[in-house]
Amino acid sequence: MALLVQKFGGTSVGSIERIEAVAEKVISYRDQGNDMVVVVSAMSGETNRLIELARQIDPQTRGRELDVLLTTGEQVTIALLAMALQKRGYPARSYTGGQVRITTDSAHNKARIKSIEHEKITGDLQNGCIVVVAGFQGVDEFDNITTLGRGGSDTTGVALAAALKAQECQIFTDVDGVYTTDPRVVPEARRLNIITFEEMLEMASLGSKVLQIRAVEFAQKYKVPLRVLSSFEEGEGTLITSEYGADKTMEQALISGIAFNRDEAQLTLNGVSDTPGVAYQILGPISDANIEVDMILQNVSADGTTDFTFTVHRNDFETALDSLKRTAKKLKAREVSGNNKIVKISIVGVGMRSHAGIASRMFEILANEGINILMISTSEIKISVVVDEKYLELGVRALHEGFDLKSQP
Amino acid sequence: MALLVQKFGGTSVGSIERIEAVAEKVISYRDQGNDMVVVVSAMSGETNRLIELARQIDPQTRGRELDVLLTTGEQVTIALLAMALQKRGYPARSYTGGQVRITTDSAHNKARIKSIEHEKITGDLQNGCIVVVAGFQGVDEFDNITTLGRGGSDTTGVALAAALKAQECQIFTDVDGVYTTDPRVVPEARRLNIITFEEMLEMASLGSKVLQIRAVEFAQKYKVPLRVLSSFEEGEGTLITSEYGADKTMEQALISGIAFNRDEAQLTLNGVSDTPGVAYQILGPISDANIEVDMILQNVSADGTTDFTFTVHRNDFETALDSLKRTAKKLKAREVSGNNKIVKISIVGVGMRSHAGIASRMFEILANEGINILMISTSEIKISVVVDEKYLELGVRALHEGFDLKSQP
Repeated sequence: MALLVQKFGGTSVGSIERIEAVAEKVISYRDQGNDMVVVVSAMSGETNRLIELARQIDPQTRGRELDVLLTTGEQVTIALLAMALQKRGYPARSYTGGQVRITTDSAHNKARIKSIEHEKITGDLQNGCIVVVAGFQGVDEFDNITTLGRGGSDTTGVALAAALKAQECQIFTDVDGVYTTDPRVVPEARRLNIITFEEMLEMASLGSKVLQIRAVEFAQKYKVPLRVLSSFEEGEGTLITSEYGADKTMEQALISGIAFNRDEAQLTLNGVSDTPGVAYQILGPISDANIEVDMILQNVSADGTTDFTFTVHRNDFETALDSLKRTAKKLKAREVSGNNKIVKISIVGVGMRSHAGIASRMFEILANEGINILMISTSEIKISVVVDEKYLELGVRALHEGFDLKSQP
Repeated sequence: MALLVQKFGGTSVGSIERIEAVAEKVISYRDQGNDMVVVVSAMSGETNRLIELARQIDPQTRGRELDVLLTTGEQVTIALLAMALQKRGYPARSYTGGQVRITTDSAHNKARIKSIEHEKITGDLQNGCIVVVAGFQGVDEFDNITTLGRGGSDTTGVALAAALKAQECQIFTDVDGVYTTDPRVVPEARRLNIITFEEMLEMASLGSKVLQIRAVEFAQKYKVPLRVLSSFEEGEGTLITSEYGADKTMEQALISGIAFNRDEAQLTLNGVSDTPGVAYQILGPISDANIEVDMILQNVSADGTTDFTFTVHRNDFETALDSLKRTAKKLKAREVSGNNKIVKISIVGVGMRSHAGIASRMFEILANEGINILMISTSEIKISVVVDEKYLELGVRALHEGFDLKSQP
């Protein structure tokens, strides 16, 4: 018998009918002989309803009491799902985060899991129970209720799977898996059967918002195989795992997917003197303004001066530009320029580690379409280019076609 | 500095505006230098909403998971009230029953409190915090969430007041105190400043449904002074206490109030042989049918046979009559009779203990109005009569006037 941890998000438990459907799905896995632990979120809309109540009292509300309030959302769902399972003749018990118990640090609204006691769950499983656990929540060492921040239910699922040494943590969502790229841009986009944690992290952080990044990092750290499946359709979904494994090498493509990000803006300081500490002097004020920086590029200096470029979220463009102009004066830089009509396109794949020529193939494909590359940045398993926003769809489609992602490798 | 426990019911916290008003009220007591512990119910309508969700899954639902579901109601209120207090600059911390912790037995949906740890609350009070506690809930020894049954928030308030040795437990409701009788029947009915636990129990069980009987019993057992006040109006309310105390003897009336019950029905077995065990043989089947018996009367036997009379709720009249007819056959009784057009009127007062002649004064007042008394039953601090239902208002008004209850004693 295998032990499976399944996580169902807010949309999957958004009504009594859907909770009943989740019960049926869980039972279908139970009937195959698996021990089942189910993690659920608040019913969709419930968390927003609670936040709205709190805001009517205090628009700035946060901290301890907000966690006490929000955790009721999942508590309602666990009780209802346990009832639905019991009605079908399957013994079930629900637990809040505090009951399990899932111990976190004391950072209210964005706590991190420190440890999980699993004796109660193990005992219930041995008694033939299906165990239902509230996602997104825990308690600190003083028994104060905490939350893991939005999307934290994924993290709860992975953490429980790690603590219980589950065979898999299955995340049920409203998509049926991870795709080679966004099917709204490329209709031929293909569902991946398998992808590595590293690839998933690059895909997720670049805009394929299927899973919370924290949950993927957690799964990678504790080597918990993750599977993304649809709550509403049958199918195997996408398995996210440490490596492709011996039996799956045939499947391994050079690149796994194409991620993109529409919300980029680029800022450049030209002709700044190339001295130690200059990068800090430029980015310090940006960071102080709570602006997150994505790509950072600095080229080899020629005449003792250099050009320094970075990208930020498009919403932060004006603020970042003002800050950069002040820095430019201080550093006596030659010029400040910026562009908020750009996008980033990335190809991702562990395969490129061992294959030369992927980058030049990427640039060739884009050149054939007449797309001018504004910036290039690479990591071990990713190559990103920044191009004019008007080329986004054309670029993504050309790369998807050029690397033959629509065909099973 | 005194320590006060205040309890606000569902209507008093039924909207954000009302929660803000409760915060203002609590702060007004805090500003007078009191340490404050506040117990709240779920916002009115919320418990019914949750029950409705559960019933959509399983109309028969009860037990452990129902408690997990329902306790979210108060958890929402404690968080919102704590936020409202904090917004006004008053440090506040909320606790669920499990966090406090309030330990109960494992009888889900109708658990009884076994013990209360109060170290956290005491610590918070010493730090100047207002403490907000969820009513109606606790955990059993295995950390399972339990509820005390409907109205259990009053019990939580009293139990906390007892554990914390509070000066008073103040129950805020939608009435401004306990009255000499129902003002809808007697417009001159007067709010009592003070009443004993015993009197309150007689008044409550006879229809003045201001407080939960269990909470009053609990307060009596642990000698916690209770005060009933209005959430919406200013006023001192009614203090419910062990005895009238030396300084309050002036106030002590012969009788404190007049209770009545419209829903009575009477059943009589005439000419049943007066042998040991006959009472059990008559009432056993009634009890087996889950019918609660109120008054029981059996007169001294004359010819070896006796008449046995009891009253039940009017809704149970037909069932009880059928049962009694079967018993009559078995016991070879002469006759079965019944009347479901009767009411019970009671005068209540610890004063009657030490004063003879209260009963005859009561019968005189009723006789002067031409009211025929069908049954009489007495306890130490109560005299009840059963009369035809058409005399209810006339009888209650005549007694209120005859014992001069409208005037402050």
